[in-house]
Amino acid sequence: MSDNKIPASVGNKENILIIGAGLCGSLLALRLGQRGYQVKLVEKRPDLRKVAQDAGRSINLAFSDRGMKAMRMVGLQKEVKKLCLPMLGRMIHDTKGNKFMSLYSGREDKYINSISRPGLNMILLDAAEELPNVTMFFNQSCQSVDLENTTAIFKDYNTKKEITHSAAIIFGTDGAGSVMRNNMFINKSLRLSFSIDWLSHSYKELTIPATENGEFKTDNNALHIWPRGENMLIALPNIDGSFTVTLFLAHETGADNFENLNTPKKVSEYFEREFPDAVALMPNLTEEFFENPTGHLGTVKCYPWNAYGNTLIMGDAAHAIVPFYGQGMIASFEDVVVLDKYIEKHEGDLQNEQTSWKTIFSEYQKERKKDTDAIADLAIDNFYEMKEHTANPIFQEKRKLEIAFEDNFPEKYNSKYSLVTFNADIPYSEAMKKGRAQDKAILNLLDYGKLTEAMSLEEKLTLVLKETKEILHDDDVAKNL
Amino acid sequence: MSDNKIPASVGNKENILIIGAGLCGSLLALRLGQRGYQVKLVEKRPDLRKVAQDAGRSINLAFSDRGMKAMRMVGLQKEVKKLCLPMLGRMIHDTKGNKFMSLYSGREDKYINSISRPGLNMILLDAAEELPNVTMFFNQSCQSVDLENTTAIFKDYNTKKEITHSAAIIFGTDGAGSVMRNNMFINKSLRLSFSIDWLSHSYKELTIPATENGEFKTDNNALHIWPRGENMLIALPNIDGSFTVTLFLAHETGADNFENLNTPKKVSEYFEREFPDAVALMPNLTEEFFENPTGHLGTVKCYPWNAYGNTLIMGDAAHAIVPFYGQGMIASFEDVVVLDKYIEKHEGDLQNEQTSWKTIFSEYQKERKKDTDAIADLAIDNFYEMKEHTANPIFQEKRKLEIAFEDNFPEKYNSKYSLVTFNADIPYSEAMKKGRAQDKAILNLLDYGKLTEAMSLEEKLTLVLKETKEILHDDDVAKNL
Repeated sequence: MSDNKIPASVGNKENILIIGAGLCGSLLALRLGQRGYQVKLVEKRPDLRKVAQDAGRSINLAFSDRGMKAMRMVGLQKEVKKLCLPMLGRMIHDTKGNKFMSLYSGREDKYINSISRPGLNMILLDAAEELPNVTMFFNQSCQSVDLENTTAIFKDYNTKKEITHSAAIIFGTDGAGSVMRNNMFINKSLRLSFSIDWLSHSYKELTIPATENGEFKTDNNALHIWPRGENMLIALPNIDGSFTVTLFLAHETGADNFENLNTPKKVSEYFEREFPDAVALMPNLTEEFFENPTGHLGTVKCYPWNAYGNTLIMGDAAHAIVPFYGQGMIASFEDVVVLDKYIEKHEGDLQNEQTSWKTIFSEYQKERKKDTDAIADLAIDNFYEMKEHTANPIFQEKRKLEIAFEDNFPEKYNSKYSLVTFNADIPYSEAMKKGRAQDKAILNLLDYGKLTEAMSLEEKLTLVLKETKEILHDDDVAKNL
Repeated sequence: MSDNKIPASVGNKENILIIGAGLCGSLLALRLGQRGYQVKLVEKRPDLRKVAQDAGRSINLAFSDRGMKAMRMVGLQKEVKKLCLPMLGRMIHDTKGNKFMSLYSGREDKYINSISRPGLNMILLDAAEELPNVTMFFNQSCQSVDLENTTAIFKDYNTKKEITHSAAIIFGTDGAGSVMRNNMFINKSLRLSFSIDWLSHSYKELTIPATENGEFKTDNNALHIWPRGENMLIALPNIDGSFTVTLFLAHETGADNFENLNTPKKVSEYFEREFPDAVALMPNLTEEFFENPTGHLGTVKCYPWNAYGNTLIMGDAAHAIVPFYGQGMIASFEDVVVLDKYIEKHEGDLQNEQTSWKTIFSEYQKERKKDTDAIADLAIDNFYEMKEHTANPIFQEKRKLEIAFEDNFPEKYNSKYSLVTFNADIPYSEAMKKGRAQDKAILNLLDYGKLTEAMSLEEKLTLVLKETKEILHDDDVAKNL
């Protein structure tokens, strides 16, 4: 049954349907709206500007250069900047409560930010809503998508009725559990390659509240980490003076895990033993632990992202990643930046509708897939780096050297972290390739004792760059046989 | 609705249900039967010993050392040997019809075989059926498995009725499209990581028939390859004098693909241009091309393989791979060999049923997962090696060197191919790691011009082994940070 059938073409530019008004879908609606398309944005949840929600979901996120590049594209950099809380480095806490700062970069102007997820989403929705050619529908949950005929059926939570939206082009920005992606998967003729990899660890969100005066209880200019090898606790500041704390805990392996930390007493003892300085700041620890949901962490990859030349999945629907590089939301924003580049390139030809969108989508996914694969893998690498390596002397020696390189030779050296985080024009895949080769070079040189105290910093850098170049060359020879 | 409910425990040893009587399930039933378990083996297809089938599926397969090791475990090595047609190397055909042999090893006793798939399956079914404690059911298609309660519902193709089989332990050997694996996947509390990767190429089976006297029309002691960079044709001999020919052709990319080779004329022209010497041997080429189904090629990985300590998926159900290393069936056989090792280790404790099977399954999957991942990746590597590299001068130089090493220093050198194919006691993961490092070492040494004509073969080997060791060491340092 369908009512509210909306015609496929309105005005000069195509009618576009976007399924999902999260961060990616809102930005996409705004950008396509700015380009003059007739955009319908449909979201299954209530309008978050009117109804508080997001219980148990991350209320803050890391935000950095690639994200800001996307905001500049739509002219929102100033508004978004106001929501940002700078974090200059990792504040590492040991089990005795000692802490030290590990900077993200040797350059002062290079830092990341903590940002409110709903706050950012609201800015995007507000800006999109101001455009006369963007229409929004909330409380409409997508049930299925007819990819070939570009119509989608939704269920309205309020009226309980089914609604069919149709359009010339449909974008699926409906998140990691994407209905649109599932419609691609079950259509065997599309041969959608697909993977979901569950992480060994799940997470629980907790809180360090603000003081009575609304002030931060601990340093607010850092991302706090309590690395414990197997598990870890982190905390990011919020604009109201609180911190959102996240425990990443093994699901069932190791000595401490979600299966055996099953009483307030056990949870309390575990935190007192492992994170005593954090416990002191968390008055509602055990209540929150048992009241808040346990979140699972998975990596979703798939390909191809477009079907029939007129539908495309983007953001988490196409590539959901674990949160450890602080790039999940940003990668989704970058999707829109890359897509926009190809729309710009081909827009002149859009008279011949189908062909041109197919071209745009094909070029987009061809460029983009390797980069979202790279950030997915880097995010998993960073999980191990954060929970284990940050507390490891060799890693600390490597980081110290890299910070010195970046501080003294800013034009000559960028660490893997910097390449990913502070170099918005370097694709993730290149950042990964070069960054991994540098890491391998430094670790091998340290292992062979080739970086001696007698050497100057510049000599060390020269040796690291030479070794990196050789590693990259050797890998290329083997690959390009 | 259920009838024919069979009690969960019969006799001293557990009642075991095996879903799927293909190569893996038949071997598993035989081995568990030999160990004295009460085994029910249920297959959805008719008994292949009574009803000819397998239309469009590979009727021959490569068979080598790891497979024979599994046959020795169950005492069937002599029967299976009779089905084997030795293939000593790759017979490479160029577009002019010239050919040359590239040996699989520098050692005379190291070769692979072509074997009849249904013939091998029949031997296993016959041997299992001889055991009084193994019962077989055909034409019963598994509909769903209750993993926690170890019961499974089947539909009988003849009676159209539902049948429930229950057992203490259930094994799913129901192939790449496993119903049992899907029951694990949809149970979200099991957090089954899963991936399916479709290859860019699909395949079509064709035939070189025997001569009127039942003789081979071309060399029968080789695996024939017509490598054409993008696509390739291969042929394996059958015991009746024919060859099964397989075209691996891009699905939609490149100049020639399944989408555009859509008329007998186009197919004919393509074959005449690319494979003229093969065309001369294939009188029914275009008829077969359009009558036989197009097969898709995918890699399936998942984990964990056991649920609730009493169910386990094995063979293609747990890890389906592409056929290019000739190890798909063999990896499934090896699953049974590895599982048998852990049953042997823990069988004394099987009084305490549940605990022990859980231990067996946990240890089995922990050892086995990395090896089936490795052979999956190696099989994809070999696709590129076969279709592109076998015709590449640098690759041929590498192979020539490796054959010389193996011929002259059999104790000191095994190529990657030999490690995988002729060293049944080296796990796939180790074969991959060492084999890839060797390949990289030789290619880099060739690239840097370090293997000079002035050097003796032994000096070259020493240099290759040294370079390999360094590559392995450097990789380990980077990984073990």
